[in-house]
Amino acid sequence: MEYSSKLLADAVEQIAKLPGIGRKTALRLALHLVKEHPVQTMQLAEALKKLRTEIRLCRVCFNISDHETCDLCRSPRRDPTQICVVEDARDVMAIENTAQFQGLYHVLGGVISPINGIGPSELKIEALLQRISTPESEVKEVILAISPTMEGDTTAFFIHRKLAPFQIKVTTIARGIPVGGDLEYADEITLGRSITSRTLMS
Amino acid sequence: MEYSSKLLADAVEQIAKLPGIGRKTALRLALHLVKEHPVQTMQLAEALKKLRTEIRLCRVCFNISDHETCDLCRSPRRDPTQICVVEDARDVMAIENTAQFQGLYHVLGGVISPINGIGPSELKIEALLQRISTPESEVKEVILAISPTMEGDTTAFFIHRKLAPFQIKVTTIARGIPVGGDLEYADEITLGRSITSRTLMS
Repeated sequence: MEYSSKLLADAVEQIAKLPGIGRKTALRLALHLVKEHPVQTMQLAEALKKLRTEIRLCRVCFNISDHETCDLCRSPRRDPTQICVVEDARDVMAIENTAQFQGLYHVLGGVISPINGIGPSELKIEALLQRISTPESEVKEVILAISPTMEGDTTAFFIHRKLAPFQIKVTTIARGIPVGGDLEYADEITLGRSITSRTLMS
Repeated sequence: MEYSSKLLADAVEQIAKLPGIGRKTALRLALHLVKEHPVQTMQLAEALKKLRTEIRLCRVCFNISDHETCDLCRSPRRDPTQICVVEDARDVMAIENTAQFQGLYHVLGGVISPINGIGPSELKIEALLQRISTPESEVKEVILAISPTMEGDTTAFFIHRKLAPFQIKVTTIARGIPVGGDLEYADEITLGRSITSRTLMS
């Protein structure tokens, strides 16, 4: 594609670097911005710049944060005896939206994936162990909320083993039939797990 | 959705204003930028800012341009006797990519659409007439390359009537079966037009 303007070509090239956005979509977005009021583009550019320069990872839980320590870690209303270990910041948001968990988080920054060159040392596993082993730690339970994929399970198992020396309860989120899901269409492994992990009706 | 960071929330809000991008995709893009090297985000923000502040419309043909007059209008190799009238800048790029047209363009900036409040005066139709009626004009043919929708056809007809007083040939791009298209699946109007506008085999 030949662009009539170098500025347009530059913008398209940069937008097309985003995941899932090809050159045609990038061109559509760029032409949309050209048509819209300049303020919208300025606000977008400013928000992106600020996002990248001012955002940081919480020094305790490695969640995305505006401050050195994130709001969740600083909150006196969160239960410091429970730590929920997740893959990334999106999982924290997803769990927070359920309003079912009152403890703290620990963001690993990924899962063990030898094929992508990600070993345990690339993740925040060592930091988790340090966080638990400090004298002031009140942690009594670590909840592993990691996706039940092969890599996720490997990561969960690795952390489980690393946590063995500590006198801490290690749990994992329940696997089973999703709420509203149909037994008929569930895969065998999920259905099997839902039977072995059956719970007492109260 | 609750965001752990105001900066992230701002960025998501701004990205989600783009057409065809919802909040989930916006969050995915924002988190991608946070993960990537800062330079990528800075280049993106810079390209968008520059796009919006420095881009302008060519004062002759209203195509998107980096200069007061666009490269096409300034080029001595383009044929000044032919003007191709199109809806927007994307159409110019599409036609340029075919390398089948050597003349100049005129970008209307839309089509007549009463339902969207766009009348002839919102488009660059008056500017087209002025462009043709200047003493130094060499225009001999105006090619209407407007989408064959109801609104496009209305616009083409309106321009055709406006051009009647000038001694200028007015043509429209051929309607017919697309190259590689199957007769069987063509709609009746297209197939009918392809028969009435049949061309002599050479």
